[in-house]
This record gives sequence, C-alpha cells and structure tokens, in this order.
Amino acid sequence: MRVLLLVLALVSVFVSSAIPQIQHTLSLVPMPADVQMGTGQLLIDPSFSVAITGHTDVRLQRAVDRFLSDLRRLTGMLPLDMKPADSPYATLVILSGTGGKDIEELGEDESYKLEINNSAATLSAATTLGTMRGLETLLQLVEMTPNGFAVPAVAIQDKPRFPWRGLMIDVSRHFIPLDVLKRNLDGMATVKLNVFHWHLSDNQGFRVESKKFPKLQGLGSDGLYYTQDEVRDLIGYAGDRGIRVVPEFDMPGHSTAWFVGYPELASGPGPYAIERQWGIFDPAIDPTQERTYKFLDDLIGEMATLFPDQFFHIGGDEVNGKQWDANPKIQAFMRLHDLKSNQDLQAYFNKRVQLIVTKHGKTTLGWDEVLHPDLPKSIVIQSWRGQDSLAAAAKQGYRGLLSYGYYLDLIWPASRHYAIDPMSGAAANLTPEESQRVLGGEACMWSEYVSPENVDSRIWPRAAAIAERLWSPQNVTDVNSMYSRLDEISRRLDWLGLTHNSSYALMLRRIAGTDDISSLRVLADVVEPVKDYTREETAPAVPTSATPLNRVVDAVRPESTTARHFTELVDALLAGQASPETKAEMIALLHQWRDNQTNLQPVLDKSFLLKEVAPLSRDLSALGGTGLNALDYLDRSELAPDDWKTEQLGLIEQAKTQKGQLLLMVAPSVQKLVEASAGHAASLVAK
Amino acid sequence: MRVLLLVLALVSVFVSSAIPQIQHTLSLVPMPADVQMGTGQLLIDPSFSVAITGHTDVRLQRAVDRFLSDLRRLTGMLPLDMKPADSPYATLVILSGTGGKDIEELGEDESYKLEINNSAATLSAATTLGTMRGLETLLQLVEMTPNGFAVPAVAIQDKPRFPWRGLMIDVSRHFIPLDVLKRNLDGMATVKLNVFHWHLSDNQGFRVESKKFPKLQGLGSDGLYYTQDEVRDLIGYAGDRGIRVVPEFDMPGHSTAWFVGYPELASGPGPYAIERQWGIFDPAIDPTQERTYKFLDDLIGEMATLFPDQFFHIGGDEVNGKQWDANPKIQAFMRLHDLKSNQDLQAYFNKRVQLIVTKHGKTTLGWDEVLHPDLPKSIVIQSWRGQDSLAAAAKQGYRGLLSYGYYLDLIWPASRHYAIDPMSGAAANLTPEESQRVLGGEACMWSEYVSPENVDSRIWPRAAAIAERLWSPQNVTDVNSMYSRLDEISRRLDWLGLTHNSSYALMLRRIAGTDDISSLRVLADVVEPVKDYTREETAPAVPTSATPLNRVVDAVRPESTTARHFTELVDALLAGQASPETKAEMIALLHQWRDNQTNLQPVLDKSFLLKEVAPLSRDLSALGGTGLNALDYLDRSELAPDDWKTEQLGLIEQAKTQKGQLLLMVAPSVQKLVEASAGHAASLVAK
Repeated sequence: MRVLLLVLALVSVFVSSAIPQIQHTLSLVPMPADVQMGTGQLLIDPSFSVAITGHTDVRLQRAVDRFLSDLRRLTGMLPLDMKPADSPYATLVILSGTGGKDIEELGEDESYKLEINNSAATLSAATTLGTMRGLETLLQLVEMTPNGFAVPAVAIQDKPRFPWRGLMIDVSRHFIPLDVLKRNLDGMATVKLNVFHWHLSDNQGFRVESKKFPKLQGLGSDGLYYTQDEVRDLIGYAGDRGIRVVPEFDMPGHSTAWFVGYPELASGPGPYAIERQWGIFDPAIDPTQERTYKFLDDLIGEMATLFPDQFFHIGGDEVNGKQWDANPKIQAFMRLHDLKSNQDLQAYFNKRVQLIVTKHGKTTLGWDEVLHPDLPKSIVIQSWRGQDSLAAAAKQGYRGLLSYGYYLDLIWPASRHYAIDPMSGAAANLTPEESQRVLGGEACMWSEYVSPENVDSRIWPRAAAIAERLWSPQNVTDVNSMYSRLDEISRRLDWLGLTHNSSYALMLRRIAGTDDISSLRVLADVVEPVKDYTREETAPAVPTSATPLNRVVDAVRPESTTARHFTELVDALLAGQASPETKAEMIALLHQWRDNQTNLQPVLDKSFLLKEVAPLSRDLSALGGTGLNALDYLDRSELAPDDWKTEQLGLIEQAKTQKGQLLLMVAPSVQKLVEASAGHAASLVAK
Repeated sequence: MRVLLLVLALVSVFVSSAIPQIQHTLSLVPMPADVQMGTGQLLIDPSFSVAITGHTDVRLQRAVDRFLSDLRRLTGMLPLDMKPADSPYATLVILSGTGGKDIEELGEDESYKLEINNSAATLSAATTLGTMRGLETLLQLVEMTPNGFAVPAVAIQDKPRFPWRGLMIDVSRHFIPLDVLKRNLDGMATVKLNVFHWHLSDNQGFRVESKKFPKLQGLGSDGLYYTQDEVRDLIGYAGDRGIRVVPEFDMPGHSTAWFVGYPELASGPGPYAIERQWGIFDPAIDPTQERTYKFLDDLIGEMATLFPDQFFHIGGDEVNGKQWDANPKIQAFMRLHDLKSNQDLQAYFNKRVQLIVTKHGKTTLGWDEVLHPDLPKSIVIQSWRGQDSLAAAAKQGYRGLLSYGYYLDLIWPASRHYAIDPMSGAAANLTPEESQRVLGGEACMWSEYVSPENVDSRIWPRAAAIAERLWSPQNVTDVNSMYSRLDEISRRLDWLGLTHNSSYALMLRRIAGTDDISSLRVLADVVEPVKDYTREETAPAVPTSATPLNRVVDAVRPESTTARHFTELVDALLAGQASPETKAEMIALLHQWRDNQTNLQPVLDKSFLLKEVAPLSRDLSALGGTGLNALDYLDRSELAPDDWKTEQLGLIEQAKTQKGQLLLMVAPSVQKLVEASAGHAASLVAK
C-alpha cells in the first residue's frame, strides 16, 4: 500500500505542472488536469469485465455496479453482460488504495490515473473517491465507432483544483422532492461536484422533520418536507457518489417559517404565517433570549446527528434588523451589552450559535455577513459578494467559498459563470498560505422561479461549466471548447433521467395545447428569460410561491443555443470569414424567423399562455426581415440608407426590451448586420 | 345510500342502450359508453378544489390526491394550489357510494357519471373504483383554451363492457424492474385497464422471492427478482389505481428456472441451468411424484398469501412432453392410472394443482391448454388460440379471457388489435348466459425482445387501443377516430414518465453516436420491426437473453405514424380527393426520402449499429425517386412505360423484404402510385 501511495504522490507532483493537451477531441467535463492521447481504442462489448484489485469495500463495489449499469445504458447492453470479474485480466482493472474516511471529509484525495490501451484499461487511485471520479471520466470517454462502442487509448492523470465544489439547492421557496434531488446528485457526480448544499429552511418553508420540534415542519412547511428517513436516504445516495451533504438552517433572518410553530423565538409579536412572497422580510430570531439558545442547542444537536458532514451552515444573510429596532427589550439588551449596531448583535448571535455548533462537533459555515472579528478562524465564509470579500476573509485567516458569480437563478450564460475564477480580483494577490484558504465554490440554485418540472433545466448544463471551473486547472478557459463539450455532456445527462432537455418540449406542448410545436419552438429557441433580478421587477402581478410556473418564461432554456450559433455566423460574416454554407445557414434562419409569425399565429390564438409572447413573435419576424435586408445591402456593397438604418435600429431597440419576461436574443446580432450594412457602405463613401 | 344506488342503477339501464355520440371532438381513450356535449366550459385555475361528499376512505383520498397531482402536472400549477375542500361548493364534487371491497374483486361496479357545466363538475359513482375511473376521464378532458385550461361542459355516463381488462407483462425472459412496472400501471390506470397479469416465472427466470424455497430465486433468477416487500409495494400501488394483480407461475412446462435450484421437481435428469434462449423447451415438472405436490402446496400457499387477488394463474401452456416420454417411471405411472396421452397426464397434474389452489382459497386461471373435461367449471381459461376456443370453453361452462390477437410482441398495428373483438367468431353466437362467461381480455407483452428501455414503446400506445376494445361499447369501431385519440393519449402518457416516446430519440442518438439524428429519423420514422415471429426466424445469430437490444429494430416504433399518414395521402390522391396541400405534402415526403441517403451516409459510416440499415436507406431513396416519377406520369396523364413499371415493381418487391429485421412501411403505397401511373394511363389508352 505504501508503494502505491508513493507512486500517486509522485504523479501528483507531475500533474500539477502539466497543461491539458487535448481540449477539443475528448468531450470531457470537467477537463482533466492532464490528458495524453494514445493510439487506437478499447472496444466495449458484452464481454467487458471489471476487476477490483487492491483495497475494496461495499461503497467501491456499489460504485462499480453503478458504473456497469451506466455503461450498459450508454451502450444498450443488458444486465447479463458486463460483469464484475475476479481476474486480473479484466477489461478494466481498478487499483484502489484505501476506502477513504467513513464519513467523507473535506480535502480527501480525489486524484486518479486512468490508462487505456487497445486491450485494457487501468484505473488507479489512492482512495475510493478517486476511483469514483475516474469511473465518471471513463464513462464520458465511451463513443460510437464503426467497429463498436469504444473508448480511445489515452493516459489521464487528474485531480481537482479545489477541494470544495458544490451545488446549493434551495428547497424552501419551492419544495423539490427527493427523487428530483437524487437525479441532480447523479448529474453532480457526472461532473465531479462533491458537495450538495441543502438550503433547508427559509421564510417560505422549514423542510426537514424535527422530532424535537415537530411544529417546525408541521406548521412551517405546508406538509412539504423530508422525513428524517428520507434525509438519511439522500445522504446515503450522495455518499455513494462521493458527495458530501451540508445542511443549511438559515438564521437569524430568513426564518419566518420557524415562527409559525414557535412564535416565541421571534423578535416581534406573532402570530406568523408561512411567507408566500419573495424578498427580505422583517422577522428574525430574538438573539437576546436564553430560550433561543436552548432551542437552538436542541435543534442543532438533533440535526448534527442527522447530518453526518463536518460542516453545518447557519445562513446568516440578509437580516434587515427591523424587528430588532422595534423591540425595546432587544434595544435594552444591546445597550446593556454594549452592542453598537445590529451587525454587532448578529455577531453576538453568531458567536453563541457557533459555540453550539462546535459543542455538537461541527464546523460552522455561513454567508458573507457572518464574517466578524469576534468569530473564530475555524468558521468558513460562503461569499455571495465576490472574490474581494473572499480575499479579505482569507487575509484575516478565514477559509471561504465563492458563490458570487455562480447564481444559476440569475439566468446568465454558461460563459459568464465560466469566466469567474475564485482566485481572480483581490484573491489573485493572496499569498500561497492565504490562497489555501479558498476552498472552492458553489453554484447556487435559488428557487423563486423553479419547480420540480424545470429545476433541472435551470441547473444543467450550466452547472457543469462551474464544475469545470472548480475542478480543472486555472488555464482551462477556452469558451468554444467549453460550449462544445457542454453540449455533449448535456445529452449524456439525459440518460441519467435529468429532465433539462426533455421538459422543454413537454412544457411547450402543454403551453401550446398541441403536439405540433414547430413554430412555437422557432420562437422559443431564440428567447431567454430576463436576467438578474428583472423577473422580480417586471412581474405582471406580485409573484408568490403559489404562482403557477407554467409560462413560456418557465419553459425556455436559460441560454439560447440558436442565438449563440447565429452570433457566431454573423461574426464570421462580418470578419470576412463566412463560407457560402455559413451564409446560407444565416439566410435560412432569417427566412425562418421572418415567416414564423404567420405559422405561429393560429397557435397563439388558441392558448391563454401564449398571449404574452405574441409581440415577441412579431418582433422576431421583423428582425428576420431586417436581417435579410441588411444582408442584401452588404451583398450589393450598397450603402443602406440612413433613414432605413435609423428606422431599423429603432425597431431593434424596441425588440431588445423584455416582453412576457423574455428577451429576444438574436436582436444584437441583427443590429450588427444593420450597422455593418450602413457602416460598411459609409466607409466606402467616406473614401 | 340506497337512493344513490338506485339512481346509479337507473343510469346503468340508460347507458346500456346509448350509442356514443361524440367520437371526434373529445380525445378520450377509452371512449365512454355515453357522452352528451353541453355548452361552454369549466375553467381549471389555481382556485380549483375538490370535495368528497358521501362515502370516503383513504384509498379515495389518495386517488383524489393523485388526481390533483396529475391535474397540476397537466396545467403546470403548483402544490399550493388546487386543494381538497370541505365545501359542497368545490369545483369538483365527488359523490362516492361505497368504498368497494377491501381486496378488489372481479366484477365490482366501475360505472360513474360525470357532469360538467360552466361552474362546477360532479362525479358520482357507486364505488371508489368508479370514482377513480371517472377521475381519469376528467383528466383526459383537460385542454388548453384562449381563456385558460378548461374542461368542456359535458355529461358522461360510463361503465365497462367487460369486467376483466388486463395487461400481461412477462418479466422472466427479460427482467423488468419495479419502477418500470409502476409507470406502466400508471398508464394502465389512464386507459382504465384493471388487471395486471404478472408473468413471474418461465424457463429464463423465477422472478419472485420465495422464503420457503429460496433457491427458486436464488439460483433461478441471476439475482434479478422482486423481494416480497417489493411485490407488496407493487400490489399496493396497483390497488390504489383500481388494478388487480394476478400472478402467474407457469407449470408444468416453462419451468426450467425452477429446476436450477430444485432439480428433483423435473421429469428428466439434471443438472439444469437457466435457459438463455427462446422457444419451447423439454424440461417439465414431474406430475407423478407426490413430493411435487407437497412442494407446490407449500409454494402456492406462500404465494397465495403474498398475492391477495382471488385468481391464481398456473400457466399450463406449451408442454412438449419429451421429458415425460423419455422417463420410464412416468410412462409406468401413466399406464397405471390409465392416462392415455401427455394431455391426459397434464390434465391430471392440473387437477391436482387446481385442488391445491382451491385449498388456498384461490380460483385457478390457465392458458388454453388447461381446458379439459376433468377440470371444474370454476377455472378460467385464457385463450391465446382465438375466439373459437374461447366460445368452446364458454359453451362448456368455463369462463374465459381473450388474449389471441392482443399479443403486443407481434408488433402489429393498433388497428389490427382494435379490430379483434372477444365476442366475434364463434363467440358471436353464444347465448346470453354463455356470453357472460367471456370476462374480457388481456394484452400480452412477452419479453423476448424488450428491455426496461424499450418495453414502454412496445406497450404504448397500442395497448390503449385494446383497452378501448375491452371497455367501450362494441360499436365503437371507427379506426380513424381511434388513431386520432391514440395520438393524443400517447402524448398524455409522456407526463406519467412513460418512455415510449422519449426513448425513441435517446436510443437513436446512441445508435448514431451523435445528437444530430435528423436524417436517421427520416429513415427510422418509416420503418417498423418485422412482424409475428419473424424476428426469431431472421435473427443474424441465435438470440439469447444476453443479446444486446440496442439495434435500430429495438429503437423504432412498432407502428410508423409517417407511413400511415403517407398511405392516407396516397389513398386520397388515387381516390381523386387530394387537395393541393395533400399533394404538396406527399411530394415533400418523397423528396425528403429520395435525398435522405446522401445526408445519412456519413452517419451510417460512423456507427457499427447502422451498418445493417444501409440497404434500407438506399431502398428508401429509390422509393422516393420512384414515387416522384410515378406522380409525374400521373400529373401528365401519361402512360408509364411497361418496362419502367416492371423495373419499379421489382425494386419495390425487393424493398419490401426485411433488412436488419426492419420493414420499409412506405413501399406498398409507392407501389400503389406506380400501379396507378401505369394503370390510369392504360385505361386512357384503352379508350
């Protein structure tokens, strides 16, 4: 065993200086630290077998069973094929060092080495965890060839850049059932994310069964919560996939749901009802009462037992302090204890809670706001404010995670998340020791506008781009390569039962009230939901947790592949690099858009949910016509008349405004065509 | 309560003489016994509520919860909406008579009455079972309108024609996991099928845990079996949906898997291995040993407790008798007991087994072959041989079910199953008393060529046509109406998680090794798997239970909608009833086919699984060209030359032969065009 570990240690040294060679030929997400292509391929046929040499345990055996099951799914082979084997001559030989910790720990070795030649594959890793990561890589290598399913000959040495690579799912604002979480854990495992951060309580719901305080879920969840058995089931499911589960109980704010059953915990008079709207609300735990800490001691004690992970998230964000300001007893307490501000009062609360968390053997994790000099250096800061605040924490000796820039609910394109590096900004200037304190990051799925039906499509495939940012070497930044691999991985995720692709057509069909959604798709394919917090700001009525999420904005994808592709075509054209095929494709798209309004109108007339997209459809048709005209001018090298240009730009500006909380993503590229058709000619005239 | 029952009784009398009025406007499957359209519609919005008046019980409440959940899914509304209500002013008022039997019985009242006006809906039924059937009808009525989701104003009085409407799934030849069965039970409930016949044992596997004889599943299932807890889980799941679960343990033949663990039961010397191939095999239980009956007494006793249904299926089909012929002890036993034939010996066995089944409180069910004068009239015959054998049984006093004509594995079109009526043939001449003995029928899904991945697509939507045959009045026979409603119900079933539609593209993508399957789909959309037992006969190698089911033949649909549609277009044209649009559509299809080979070739080159369809692709291109030429002749009213015609018909005959175990379904329609182009002109010349 010691020899193996030594070899792996050497490998690690070697890996750290390697630069990924192959970014375009293999559709791997995340891109491994080092990839060396070989020659030839290893066929995957029904005779495929796996042997575990070295250490083995039930978790590893289950991982291998799951691997075989996935492999069968990827090839259509059957359970009677592809068996585990005893023989060292198996197709895949796994050499695992140790089983790792009973309860997965932060920073456990996840490295692995995968070598594939024409006759066999060898996967070696120091731990079961590393083996699991390597098995996922191997699955991603499976491809169709003229001779059969195969994996290419390759040598991969891989390890993560950051030890904490998370996905947070908010199950409070909208409840997300266990089976939906499980399929998302499958997705996480595929892209090597290793922390599921379970945002379990908020104003809109307390989602986990407490046996000590049953009114928490009994009155605070509308009956939509996880039993403790279900929690254990999910933790086991995650553990089998090398994913830690970190629970969050947000306090002292974001806690209205607690007060429905236990109003005595609040800083203001009750009674309380479950919050139905979104935003920051006044109710906050009363940090001045001893009974608060007795309650929290009991609750945290219970939850610390239920959740085995070392880390315990106490939230701590967005306390507006209004209940504290309005409560004379609390004001008196602050004076008595020389607490100058609500921030100080919250720090007092955090310190007390942190002691309770520590007492129960856990490490406290909290959002930016918990950072305060009174708190010990052991706590971990999750930053939604940015790399600078992460760097500031690291300089003060705190470990931290980046979530700024990784909020999936803001509906940004994958490229924007991908460009955000935890070690950029002020974090780029940290000393090596301080840098070590940046543990990684977490993609966050806040759930104001997600339901079990569309949550997958809000997470995938964009979370995979964040996963790559957190796993792959910092210099893996090629956006085109990322998108091309993301497309591939997105399709792979379909096999796991994730619905990010399948729900799209299903929801559009429901919205249209017909199976023939071809013309609706032409429109839906080029729109995206509004970004950032615009959905809030432009809501037609005050949105609540009961507002149906069945509109076009809920169905369409966060990122329009068609619009991205059209932008590429336009850019190529304007750079003088367009082939005749490129141009033909662009013209075909513009034609399709121009003519789509006519095709779509009868569908629009039949559905109440399509009324709000009628103006978008007209805009798209107009943009199609405008684009074709602009191309005509460009073709003829003729100056587009000024008044035409002005009129078109006005139209385009109008088309860029949100309608039905949707954005027409092709407008900017059509604008480029119009400007070029005028500018190009103008420059000719200027001569 | 008595008043209600009286009302319902009157309703039933009324229904029996009614003829369904509306077959085209409502997409209901099965078509109810009586439908009277009203005026207006009832909006389904978040305020929708359900009140249960009259009898209630937990099963009814669960049914209502499930109804609400389905309704939310059909509308995209959320769990906080659409609640149960106490008020009689609820949107839907349910008036249920009684809860029905604790264990669902054959012939329980399934009738219901559904009345919908502009402000409310009322569903009344004598039993919870009837209420459940009515709720399914209500769900099918939900449609998109310009004003919101709605159900049309309508009055429906409905009851089934036959009390036994089953789906059999063979889980022995290929194991089908519990979750796959569950989603198929959801599908059954949607179309009002009420018996799940679980074919649990066969030569290829004994699929249920026996605690008394653990080697049955331990050595006879490759580890692929249901635990008793899982069986109970499934029975509960089915019961909640008003579906009885009838287990089948096939004996004395089809029992090789039993003998792996218990060779002493067999009529020939062991040892035995699980059978991997398909067909009829020699091993059979030894009916001459007393220990056989001791074993069966124990096993049937155990299973009779596990499966609460009144009926117990003992199989009894396809005993070839070779082991009996070859065993001197058995021959001596036959002489001693004056058993003249193997059939007599099997009747002796059946009689003994029937006594055991009776002893354990159950009623015996068996395939055709169990019919023998020695057996009591209480047994039920499941006929795979036809209505005549069903009628013969009925005349002798036996109750029976039809499965002849309902074998889904034969890959027939829905219309062919739909045309088969249990009361046709000799059964049409039964006396009313004898007719009563025809209990209904069962669709059968034998699983030689189905896996969890494609089993849904082999069952749905075709099983829904059989469900309608067994539920709706005998005069509901309009094939066009059936197909149009089948298309709709097929899409509805997608929402239940059934994969009959979604697996198609997924499997094609895997086969192609690329996401761009547009050209592959053009081909796949017009082919069907070979019919009847041709898959067996034309297999490239001896098929076994380990043969991957990942080929094009496993992915394509049993029935090509495109080919059916093309046939309609051609028939309309040749009948002189084609609009310009019809003709344009036909030409577009022919163009697409003609040009598809060029587009598909690069894809074909890359996949080993596509090699076998290359000739089909060439044939399709040729057919496209031929069809266009024929249309040209027809357009010009010109005689197609004889040698051209001869050459084309030769080409078409060749194109009709199976390749890759697939049939090109558009060949016969192209043939019609060719014949018309020659014949039409010929008739002109003849003048």
